[in-house]
Amino acid sequence: MEFTKKLDEGMSRRSLLTGAGKLALVTAGAAAVSGGLGFMSQAEALGGPTEKWPWPYVKLDPDFTAELAYKEWYRVFCGNAVISSIFGQLREKVGEPYKSFPIDGFVFLEGGMAGWGTVCGSNAGANIVSNLIIGPRIAGPDCENGHQIGSEMMQWYSETALPTFTPKEPKQKTAIIQTTSNSPLCHVSVGKWMDKAGFALASAERKDRCARVAASVAHKLVVDLNAWKDGKYESKATWTPGKTFGITGQQNCNECHGSNIPTPPQAKK
Amino acid sequence: MEFTKKLDEGMSRRSLLTGAGKLALVTAGAAAVSGGLGFMSQAEALGGPTEKWPWPYVKLDPDFTAELAYKEWYRVFCGNAVISSIFGQLREKVGEPYKSFPIDGFVFLEGGMAGWGTVCGSNAGANIVSNLIIGPRIAGPDCENGHQIGSEMMQWYSETALPTFTPKEPKQKTAIIQTTSNSPLCHVSVGKWMDKAGFALASAERKDRCARVAASVAHKLVVDLNAWKDGKYESKATWTPGKTFGITGQQNCNECHGSNIPTPPQAKK
Repeated sequence: MEFTKKLDEGMSRRSLLTGAGKLALVTAGAAAVSGGLGFMSQAEALGGPTEKWPWPYVKLDPDFTAELAYKEWYRVFCGNAVISSIFGQLREKVGEPYKSFPIDGFVFLEGGMAGWGTVCGSNAGANIVSNLIIGPRIAGPDCENGHQIGSEMMQWYSETALPTFTPKEPKQKTAIIQTTSNSPLCHVSVGKWMDKAGFALASAERKDRCARVAASVAHKLVVDLNAWKDGKYESKATWTPGKTFGITGQQNCNECHGSNIPTPPQAKK
Repeated sequence: MEFTKKLDEGMSRRSLLTGAGKLALVTAGAAAVSGGLGFMSQAEALGGPTEKWPWPYVKLDPDFTAELAYKEWYRVFCGNAVISSIFGQLREKVGEPYKSFPIDGFVFLEGGMAGWGTVCGSNAGANIVSNLIIGPRIAGPDCENGHQIGSEMMQWYSETALPTFTPKEPKQKTAIIQTTSNSPLCHVSVGKWMDKAGFALASAERKDRCARVAASVAHKLVVDLNAWKDGKYESKATWTPGKTFGITGQQNCNECHGSNIPTPPQAKK
């Protein structure tokens, strides 16, 4: 088995440094992150046919995409709706690698992953789309924007009164109020909305709210991808908790910890 | 555009009910979940070449897979390591659709998604693997186990002292202590470990702990997939917060809410 054999045997730093373009880039990207070749010198990209980034992208219409995502929510729910509204169009306009991607396999992103209330599926779907189109950050400097657009989405989602998008033909004719989650998590986002709106999880109003949130995320995602395609994307993502606070996390520490926020063990100076 | 045109035009219930196998199954699955055909009757599966489930699967060795995941963590980090340790082997043993799947595109799952501390990437990676191999729950009764294996993973992850797996040749020779997260979230899981172990996020020990957690998850995932392949998988997933409590969420309510747990608006009886 080539993949597992290579992992076991490792590859010398010399062979990597003298190797051709892509692999060197991948390793350089990984090294930049880890601060040295170290273990990275043993690895290489898997290199399947869809692992050449960025994927071909043509600019899409944000409003049309949002309408699609809204409709798709009622078929495949939040995360998958963000994916299918964009990859579904690209499958037709571009073809591969979107044709071979299992768009409909991501229904489980619903309810913060199988109902567990973790990351909102719309955020997860947006990260999948931006990182698969532009590429993973280890694939080199040209691919960093995939990670940045995904991270910026979670920041925008947390700070924005959602939903921002109203469909032309809403399933629910009554007004859907907006709430700001201060969190990328499904449980916090939908919980704050339910608390203010007074509607149950199983209500038609809550479902339509989440369909509009997925559509709002799809809209912003296409705006950002179009800007990236034009070479004009500038990341507004500023949240780097690992560097700043020494632990992965979100901004609303007090909501869970109150005034008793633990100090994580710090790296030795 | 065929996809968008069909969405706009909708399909009559009659055409769905008289249609052939796959489409009817998809609709029936979705209808069972939503409690009626309703909007679902307007939808159909996208139907790309990789959207025929389940995908071919051959049984893998759990220990060997865990060793791979451990090594892969140092290349692509937690979530992508779970995916690549399993799909990388299947790409060689089976071929398509694993060859066309962009295995290396999921680095962003690291740090609870781009460092935001949401769902642990190992859990997210496991859900991607189980749902893509077995299929999304809307694809019919044969595909429900993908969702179940993913949900069971998050329950096991929350309730188990992790890591359970020790590699044959660990990068860190010192002992790595185990902690129980009571949560599928990266922030909670790594935070509790750092608190008890006393090591910083940037430490070699913390990195090795997370590499072993990814390996532990990959090990259990292969055990479950092998049982499913043999027709012997029985789900131990019991967590259905939407039905039980009326909101998506995890079990550790008190950790964030203290004794002041809000009651979500309930559905009308």
